Amino acid sequence: MDWKPVLAAIEAATAPHIGSGKVADYIPALARVDPSKFGMAVVLGSGEMLTLGDSHEPFSIQSISKVFTLSMALRWFGESVWDRVGREPSGSAFNSIIQLENEKGIPRNPLINAGAIVITDMLVAASSADAVVNELIARLRRFSGDETIKIDEEVAESESATGSRNRALAYFMASFGNMNNSVEESLGAYFRQCAVRMSCRQLARAALFLAFDGRDPITREQMVSREYCRRINAVMMSCGHYDNSGDFAYRIGLPGKSGVGGGILAVAPGHGVIATWSPGLNAAGTSMVGAVALEELVEATGWSVFV
Amino acid sequence: MDWKPVLAAIEAATAPHIGSGKVADYIPALARVDPSKFGMAVVLGSGEMLTLGDSHEPFSIQSISKVFTLSMALRWFGESVWDRVGREPSGSAFNSIIQLENEKGIPRNPLINAGAIVITDMLVAASSADAVVNELIARLRRFSGDETIKIDEEVAESESATGSRNRALAYFMASFGNMNNSVEESLGAYFRQCAVRMSCRQLARAALFLAFDGRDPITREQMVSREYCRRINAVMMSCGHYDNSGDFAYRIGLPGKSGVGGGILAVAPGHGVIATWSPGLNAAGTSMVGAVALEELVEATGWSVFV
Amino acid sequence: MDWKPVLAAIEAATAPHIGSGKVADYIPALARVDPSKFGMAVVLGSGEMLTLGDSHEPFSIQSISKVFTLSMALRWFGESVWDRVGREPSGSAFNSIIQLENEKGIPRNPLINAGAIVITDMLVAASSADAVVNELIARLRRFSGDETIKIDEEVAESESATGSRNRALAYFMASFGNMNNSVEESLGAYFRQCAVRMSCRQLARAALFLAFDGRDPITREQMVSREYCRRINAVMMSCGHYDNSGDFAYRIGLPGKSGVGGGILAVAPGHGVIATWSPGLNAAGTSMVGAVALEELVEATGWSVFV
Amino acid sequence: MDWKPVLAAIEAATAPHIGSGKVADYIPALARVDPSKFGMAVVLGSGEMLTLGDSHEPFSIQSISKVFTLSMALRWFGESVWDRVGREPSGSAFNSIIQLENEKGIPRNPLINAGAIVITDMLVAASSADAVVNELIARLRRFSGDETIKIDEEVAESESATGSRNRALAYFMASFGNMNNSVEESLGAYFRQCAVRMSCRQLARAALFLAFDGRDPITREQMVSREYCRRINAVMMSCGHYDNSGDFAYRIGLPGKSGVGGGILAVAPGHGVIATWSPGLNAAGTSMVGAVALEELVEATGWSVFV
Repeated sequence: MDWKPVLAAIEAATAPHIGSGKVADYIPALARVDPSKFGMAVVLGSGEMLTLGDSHEPFSIQSISKVFTLSMALRWFGESVWDRVGREPSGSAFNSIIQLENEKGIPRNPLINAGAIVITDMLVAASSADAVVNELIARLRRFSGDETIKIDEEVAESESATGSRNRALAYFMASFGNMNNSVEESLGAYFRQCAVRMSCRQLARAALFLAFDGRDPITREQMVSREYCRRINAVMMSCGHYDNSGDFAYRIGLPGKSGVGGGILAVAPGHGVIATWSPGLNAAGTSMVGAVALEELVEATGWSVFV
Repeated sequence: MDWKPVLAAIEAATAPHIGSGKVADYIPALARVDPSKFGMAVVLGSGEMLTLGDSHEPFSIQSISKVFTLSMALRWFGESVWDRVGREPSGSAFNSIIQLENEKGIPRNPLINAGAIVITDMLVAASSADAVVNELIARLRRFSGDETIKIDEEVAESESATGSRNRALAYFMASFGNMNNSVEESLGAYFRQCAVRMSCRQLARAALFLAFDGRDPITREQMVSREYCRRINAVMMSCGHYDNSGDFAYRIGLPGKSGVGGGILAVAPGHGVIATWSPGLNAAGTSMVGAVALEELVEATGWSVFV
Repeated sequence: MDWKPVLAAIEAATAPHIGSGKVADYIPALARVDPSKFGMAVVLGSGEMLTLGDSHEPFSIQSISKVFTLSMALRWFGESVWDRVGREPSGSAFNSIIQLENEKGIPRNPLINAGAIVITDMLVAASSADAVVNELIARLRRFSGDETIKIDEEVAESESATGSRNRALAYFMASFGNMNNSVEESLGAYFRQCAVRMSCRQLARAALFLAFDGRDPITREQMVSREYCRRINAVMMSCGHYDNSGDFAYRIGLPGKSGVGGGILAVAPGHGVIATWSPGLNAAGTSMVGAVALEELVEATGWSVFV
Repeated sequence: MDWKPVLAAIEAATAPHIGSGKVADYIPALARVDPSKFGMAVVLGSGEMLTLGDSHEPFSIQSISKVFTLSMALRWFGESVWDRVGREPSGSAFNSIIQLENEKGIPRNPLINAGAIVITDMLVAASSADAVVNELIARLRRFSGDETIKIDEEVAESESATGSRNRALAYFMASFGNMNNSVEESLGAYFRQCAVRMSCRQLARAALFLAFDGRDPITREQMVSREYCRRINAVMMSCGHYDNSGDFAYRIGLPGKSGVGGGILAVAPGHGVIATWSPGLNAAGTSMVGAVALEELVEATGWSVFV
């Protein structure tokens, strides 16, 4: 594929939108990010990397971390993961808490906060909060080949300090018996995993295995089984963008996961992995410019899984 | 592809499940269907057709008709369809009515009853109830090349006689101004579209355009634009199986739509279209044997969109 | 009691509020009512009647009719009424439909629309729509001693023409098996009962039995048993003002029922019955001036049941 | 009134029900209470006390404490209490959390857990957790004239240890800005107030002011203003029994408050105050035998506020 016109088309399509959307402002470290930032990295199976803009600049991956902890949990526990979390889309945040009550503390899926907290709680119960976070960082470093990846401890502390809603969710699940550690211990790990800082380049590289049957095409390491790989992608397609998941599937047609730090991770099975970053969010918490970039990329490459 | 072992594997996988699940019994015409029926048809781009079991026997397509009326609506009205219906998954039936209230009479997506009623209401407002039903039948006949396709009027009447919940949904939407015709007129067309009888062979053939960019690969007729084709597939992936959509994506990984008559339509983009039929349903109204057959087919062919 | 200062205090308290609130405008016949109207009638056990303002002018009693149909139903069917309707407050309109789904088509209480429709459906099933409406009118005439009381057929027709939400509720209950007649038949009676026109004088007089153990203190006719009388009052206290019922109990402390026509009926057990009318409503559909008048009356008379 | 036949009737009515219902078992100290216990105390304005059964035996007052903290809050803060908590009934526990989300962290009323936690949080913010609990105990001792009233610290600790749902509610409200202290501090006071142990005699005596315009008729101390007294009674009537409040009003017709320890406090304005205790609860957490006793008492005395 000739990438030059593709990248040019993406630049042209995103330019009018740079700076649009609302930057997450519930913690200072996110609020002060420059809203005009935009970066993108596409990593192919060959290892070739195409980039645009601020693709080198680390940002807070936030909820994108949920994809990696889900991978770890499926590798460690297999199908029993689904005893404690569903895999159906959640609807609105409003419905999400209704469903948590209605479904006796079983969160709808592992990519909403409640579900990701349960996943982390599983991992913590099988090792420890520190071990989980260290393993996550180690994997991200190894796959991106970059030892500088680390947790932004200021962000982690701010998340914890403002984390009343996540505590409410965790105690709510605990009241139904769906937490195995103390709420504070599991949330401690959860807040830290969300505070990992990575660049688009690092992020796309680290997730490359998701486009190639669970196996990193460069290192040949099998990260998750072929079965689980396609299922992680399925969960990302169904549930990766909160109450925007259907719209993302409609417009872009790739499995993806958004984070309130402005990042989006998208997987084009058999082709490659894309990471975008731009801090302005739409109402559902998905990066506006990132979504435009992915829409244009899919248009130009035909990578939608639906054709 | 050598289809013999694939079909054999599907037969072997489904055999132990034949007869399982619960046959829809809210109307007599559905309740009296033999639960041990199982048929399957796979149509490829070349027109080649692979079949299993009762693939010739017509059944009530029910909600699978929603895919065809959505196609018609997108062709007639384009993006304005989304002014009156969303494209997000609905969650449980329970959440579905909460959301209808919360979202002021805009149903979550065109593949749940409320949304399909709105789609039919749009089509009826632009022509008439009879015209819509006639056009639907005409298209289904032309594409399947089979003039015998018709509506089961007994089923249509039974649906109407037992249709209190659909009337409730329609009047509810009408109270928010989201019905353009009289409720009875639009529901009349809706009940008839659900009562179309087709076999797996006819159904898979009629939907073949969905696997090939909106164009029927045999007749070369462009049924919907390439854009809308992939978007219909996206909506099927996100929303095609009520509160089972995430599970279907997880297990099978193909855009699909289930009907309470026991049919499932599934699209493998670039490869072909599959229709299965077996009357026993799971709790979310998806054919149990049909889902097993599709799971095995995807395993054997690697057609999941997620790898 | 010396009523002169009491009435003067009420006049002084209401004066600054005359014309405030929002007149119901979903049908023309209600929308065109003069918002500056205010009438009040207090009827004592002796038959003595104290009045203020437009106490002679008939208005659409709307939901106040629910108290009379509940009385009829308890007299005709006794405790079995509660098999088909609850007696708990409903919360918001929003919650009301959630609960209707959650509680399998059993409405929360007989003073919200869904519950009153079920009550009317019971009465209609035991006689006919016409018989129910005729009996209601006959009773209202006899007790108020006024043969001019009648249904405003224009209002009844407008209610029917704009009644999508009530139809939705009725079909919704029908889908759970909680309607015994055709929806249109029972709703026909319901729309007509809501369209009764009465003045404050007529209304307070007709409900006098509710303050005196179910027996009209003038005619000595026992309208409902002592047991049911206090229980109707209890239901009015708990549920008489939609999601404003707690506030009404807090401020006024009398069993009452509001109607969107601007009327309020309030019962002071052992003392008398009060009817007020002023068309401007608060957000929960209770007359603003009427509530102020009742608040002042309770202050001046000490008639709150809570002291 | 001749109390002998009244008490005899109550004994006869309750006898067949002794031991029925389900004893709260979420903490050991409640679970091990003898289910056959039944006590009752009626205190009149003269100070006369009528008793039945285990009226001397202290039990865990649990949610009945909410009436006393509400009284304190209204005395300390007046109407501003209602800025942070509503006064509408809550519907089911299920609806209660939906409404907490829908109404932005403002609980429906001060007699459900969420609302009582907010009330305690107000009191704690104006003094300290210890000061609030000490003041509560001091008042209860002074009014019952019994210095032995105290907190069961085992119960308080068990409540805290099993308090995940209350923590979820508190953090949920905190996420909307409706907690002024740390969640643990306010919950600490809340768990202790619920763990107060009192007998029926002490409880009825301590609440006597509620039947006499806010003034203790023996000591003449004005506990709350006349205005607030009747309003506390109104809130008890509307909201005192969770999703059973309407039924309690219907059957008994007195302002009341239930606790999961099996106690019920009921107020007969102008007559006296009644406390009952029997551990077996109905589905909504109200003592079954206690409700039967109150129903009979109201029947025999005519004390319902609705006649």
